[in-house]
Amino acid sequence: MTAELLNGREIAKAYRAGLAEEVEKLKAQGITPNLTVVIVGNDGASLSYVRSKNKAAEKIGMSSGIIHLDADVAETELLDTIERLNNDDTVNGILVQVPLPEQISEEKVLEAIAPHKDVDGFHPTNIGRLYTGQRTFVPCTPLGIMELLKHTGPLEGKDVAVIGRSHIVGQPVAKLLTDAHATVTLMHSRTQGMIDKLKHFDVVISAVGAPGLVTGMHLKEGAIVVDVGNSVVDEKLVGDVDFESAKAVASYITPVPGGVGPMTITMVLNNTLLAAKWHNGLE
Amino acid sequence: MTAELLNGREIAKAYRAGLAEEVEKLKAQGITPNLTVVIVGNDGASLSYVRSKNKAAEKIGMSSGIIHLDADVAETELLDTIERLNNDDTVNGILVQVPLPEQISEEKVLEAIAPHKDVDGFHPTNIGRLYTGQRTFVPCTPLGIMELLKHTGPLEGKDVAVIGRSHIVGQPVAKLLTDAHATVTLMHSRTQGMIDKLKHFDVVISAVGAPGLVTGMHLKEGAIVVDVGNSVVDEKLVGDVDFESAKAVASYITPVPGGVGPMTITMVLNNTLLAAKWHNGLE
Repeated sequence: MTAELLNGREIAKAYRAGLAEEVEKLKAQGITPNLTVVIVGNDGASLSYVRSKNKAAEKIGMSSGIIHLDADVAETELLDTIERLNNDDTVNGILVQVPLPEQISEEKVLEAIAPHKDVDGFHPTNIGRLYTGQRTFVPCTPLGIMELLKHTGPLEGKDVAVIGRSHIVGQPVAKLLTDAHATVTLMHSRTQGMIDKLKHFDVVISAVGAPGLVTGMHLKEGAIVVDVGNSVVDEKLVGDVDFESAKAVASYITPVPGGVGPMTITMVLNNTLLAAKWHNGLE
Repeated sequence: MTAELLNGREIAKAYRAGLAEEVEKLKAQGITPNLTVVIVGNDGASLSYVRSKNKAAEKIGMSSGIIHLDADVAETELLDTIERLNNDDTVNGILVQVPLPEQISEEKVLEAIAPHKDVDGFHPTNIGRLYTGQRTFVPCTPLGIMELLKHTGPLEGKDVAVIGRSHIVGQPVAKLLTDAHATVTLMHSRTQGMIDKLKHFDVVISAVGAPGLVTGMHLKEGAIVVDVGNSVVDEKLVGDVDFESAKAVASYITPVPGGVGPMTITMVLNNTLLAAKWHNGLE
């Protein structure tokens, strides 16, 4: 078996084309969805990531702004900035790029974003709504993974191993998979005999940041493999999965780069569109 | 092997004695923790449950009130009542007994309770805080289960099957177990071959409401069995587990009644004590 590629770039491209059409319809009604990203300091990788979100929003017809604050900005000034964006009716989605400098409490900042503009879906109120089944912004990487998995057939009844228990990826994707009627085992660093257990699973989602963690010999024949790993080795972006050996066993597999990554930004745009619709009483 | 009994009544009694000591200390500082329960209508089981919470609170020295509203009360009146309790400094914990009559939105009511008085831990903000690892009120049944499991040794590295994916029991207990470094598989009605899979698990927690679902032959030798089932058969309260056959295989097992049930009310008291402490800037 050679796995079919879950090509995140292509799937994201098609998905964004759909978003662009919806943006156009909103603009015809006088509504231009806006995504505003706040960044503190001058970390190169963060800056480039922020700019790519910005460009992606503009490419589908949204308006987009970047607010760039000095690395030594006071927490109160950042909170004031967020408060201003919360109250600005032309802003639909607010992202604050993390990590933040030491003098600023990330928790306080993420809680300061109005839940109805929190397109990252990190506000406790939004996470709570996710778990109670209410309308909310679903965190972008888990949402993007679910969108990729739509291309592999129904999840109902499948046994899924999620490796990594972060509240950004592992836990919410486990929740979404459970809602889709899959049976999820949430694995992590303390799981006994983890690698040998993977053989029993129809789907393996790895979100650890440990290059080479999962290889073909660990997988069930025909497994679906989603690689959320995101490490830099020899100046190259690599995932958790040994792609070549896994590809020979899996039925579907995501590459790194070009798998989950493009889907994450796409879901930021998706959530910003939702924010604009909800703000205007549409849907 | 004959399992050791996880006697919820005894464990709850000892736990409440500890709470009573802490209540006494607070009273010496002029603080009397108060639990106020709101009940709508005259359902016999609900009334008796509310009274038992009330009595349990008073037995450990807390003050406690019941607000009893007519079955046909308007939603706005219930919301006004909650608003009044939110603003009443003598009230630390607010419980609204569910289910509520048809004219009232349960979601709206549970969201109306101030998060810092939501001792059930059902408010989306509190659930969100649970998942982001912040200080919060943990839902009472999951918290009670974790307390019972403290009597069975460390959970780290154990494989746990949780049967039932409700957001009141299954999902939050899966989260708490994951935090305790167990590896959790969340099973439900769509899980393939569920019963046969149980043999692989060190701990089985069943929260379905299906009498006889789990029997001894499904269990791994020495498994720990927690029965959250709560069904009435022939006017008797029964769990999901066939106690006699399971007891012969398990290392620890909870009875029904007298297992998880007493722990749930105990954790309501625990959370009310925390609410009183936090409100007064203690801890």
